[in-house]
Amino acid sequence: MDSKVEFLFLNEEDMIKAGVLDADRAVDTIGEVITLLSEGDYLMGGRAHNDHGVQLIFPEKSDIPNFPLADSADRRFMAMPAYLGGRFHMCGEKWYGSNGRNSHKGLPRSILMATLNDVETGQPLAYMSANLLSAMRTGAMPGLTAMYLARKDSRVLTILGAGVIGRTSLMAIMAKFPDLEVLKIKGSSKTSHTAHELADYARENYKSLKEIIICDTLEEAVRDADIIAEAVSVEPRKWPVIDPAWVKPGCTIISSGTMDMDLEFVRDHVTKVVDNIQMYEEYVNVYQEWDEDGNRISLGTPGIHFVNMVTDGWIEKSEIRHLGNIMRGLEPGRTSDDEIFLVSLGGMPILDVGWGYECYQRALREGIGTKLKLWDMPYMR
Amino acid sequence: MDSKVEFLFLNEEDMIKAGVLDADRAVDTIGEVITLLSEGDYLMGGRAHNDHGVQLIFPEKSDIPNFPLADSADRRFMAMPAYLGGRFHMCGEKWYGSNGRNSHKGLPRSILMATLNDVETGQPLAYMSANLLSAMRTGAMPGLTAMYLARKDSRVLTILGAGVIGRTSLMAIMAKFPDLEVLKIKGSSKTSHTAHELADYARENYKSLKEIIICDTLEEAVRDADIIAEAVSVEPRKWPVIDPAWVKPGCTIISSGTMDMDLEFVRDHVTKVVDNIQMYEEYVNVYQEWDEDGNRISLGTPGIHFVNMVTDGWIEKSEIRHLGNIMRGLEPGRTSDDEIFLVSLGGMPILDVGWGYECYQRALREGIGTKLKLWDMPYMR
Repeated sequence: MDSKVEFLFLNEEDMIKAGVLDADRAVDTIGEVITLLSEGDYLMGGRAHNDHGVQLIFPEKSDIPNFPLADSADRRFMAMPAYLGGRFHMCGEKWYGSNGRNSHKGLPRSILMATLNDVETGQPLAYMSANLLSAMRTGAMPGLTAMYLARKDSRVLTILGAGVIGRTSLMAIMAKFPDLEVLKIKGSSKTSHTAHELADYARENYKSLKEIIICDTLEEAVRDADIIAEAVSVEPRKWPVIDPAWVKPGCTIISSGTMDMDLEFVRDHVTKVVDNIQMYEEYVNVYQEWDEDGNRISLGTPGIHFVNMVTDGWIEKSEIRHLGNIMRGLEPGRTSDDEIFLVSLGGMPILDVGWGYECYQRALREGIGTKLKLWDMPYMR
Repeated sequence: MDSKVEFLFLNEEDMIKAGVLDADRAVDTIGEVITLLSEGDYLMGGRAHNDHGVQLIFPEKSDIPNFPLADSADRRFMAMPAYLGGRFHMCGEKWYGSNGRNSHKGLPRSILMATLNDVETGQPLAYMSANLLSAMRTGAMPGLTAMYLARKDSRVLTILGAGVIGRTSLMAIMAKFPDLEVLKIKGSSKTSHTAHELADYARENYKSLKEIIICDTLEEAVRDADIIAEAVSVEPRKWPVIDPAWVKPGCTIISSGTMDMDLEFVRDHVTKVVDNIQMYEEYVNVYQEWDEDGNRISLGTPGIHFVNMVTDGWIEKSEIRHLGNIMRGLEPGRTSDDEIFLVSLGGMPILDVGWGYECYQRALREGIGTKLKLWDMPYMR
């Protein structure tokens, strides 16, 4: 009977050594996770087992001095627990704080930590810097989605939003589509520093790309694209609105951030795919807001629109397909060259547990990280 | 502009050095927290800002091999985030896994970790072993409650449930009622090992106690008690059911665990007090279950019964008093020597942030703990 509890601390450098930046393996691992999701071999939070997490929602204003307010982009804290089954058989959670003002301080917008826990005893096994973990698992999802839904002959990739998730989406898609020829990037503006950094990164790392274009307008970015990976994180209602007239037949639009598109066009002419419909149903419960006339305010999340379309009788729930079910052959993927897909990816803690587990296992094998002791013998039992 | 992020790791030994076991100060600090709660200077999770946390709820059964089940007492994982205002001005969260089987392994039933985070940037400031933190803040609440509601001439203290929270409740109440003369302990049985350990602990530490009785029956434990601190953690519906006939006039019953009492007696003859009614309203939303005949199944939490009494029109919502409002003189406390109180304490992450902050501050001042680096410069921003 050993009462001692130790765990492994992995800082950002350790995580890099443990392979967190390996986009190709991240996509493959995330593919396993999404298969387990489809099989039901997981748990997330709450009674419905599918909460994205629980958020500290800062108010717009407060009479209390010094009270933190929703006064910058993405200001929030979020705790995201999960159990992931299969060969992972691991519990864990991600906990982070975000604040758009961080960029002025040389800090990432979000600072994230992940814990892995023994399923049986609950003890922490690993405590890891999760900025790269989270960015890579989030970017891996568009990579996985493109593998299953994009046209095999895709030539033009568009990245909307040149931030961290834009970059990791690029990494994941390039890992699985090494023959892409044209990369279009749409940042906040033509002179956006991050857009140019992303272009430089692509030029250096993907020699197959014949053309890298920093776009001036959304229309320029969307036209001719075979795959659009959207990863825009801006203030509410400032996100891109894609005009259906710009969309090339056969295009696969993958939304990881926030965007909008004419809902009637989406209803009638677009195949709707999500990672996890129950998560969007929970989102609607928690986050849906209405304007003064009783109309829903868009949250910029296609999956939430899909749920509302079902609620309003616009579509049948069965018209919303699941990536995991498509992977397992339970639902059709692409059925024609002209089919347009709109895919909503919401971010799930099972992805953090899955990719975190892989990095943790490699860290264990290679002796990476710092072992920390919680206690030799607990003071109270 | 400094992009470096470091935080302080405090293991259990560090937490003891940092004063986590100081029950007297814990009660005073928790008193500040409950005052801030009453003032609204805090945030907890969700749209209503009052979620206890988000839980991984294991199913009773599953067809999936190796799927973790609700097959032991308290098997769960829970993430509990909060912001606490006032002089604390700190975000944080507690994350833990529990499993009744841990005791067979020499481990505590729950293994808990707490993080403190900078409100502005979100970065972790401290990562701490939270078993003692959580136990002490939980026990501090009955101490604080007794200070404000118990008769000043209280002589007999009863502890129901001789586990960790029973002990820390004893520590907190004894810190504020040093003149108590009789301690009654009701464990799982007369020969309960933990009950005898708790009696030994009390004998050693509280010389003022003239009598320490390990009770055979619940009735023996309840009779003559001026203060009853209940901290029972057992399987559903196996918790103590207090017969009103046993209760001494003027008794203050403080429930931190699970118990029941005749609801009509509670409605008509008991003053109902909670830490945070909104939290119980959220509990009802998430956890309330019904039997086959459509009757509510008791969850053993008085605060949930209070909410249901309001829903059913048995009482007015204004009849439920709040400890923080009583502390601030906004609602009456004890108004007669014979008044019987039933107080429901549910556990809130603001308590972890508050008491964790105090320990962290002392650790900083005294150079306790291990400084850990997340990065010198973040790899991606």
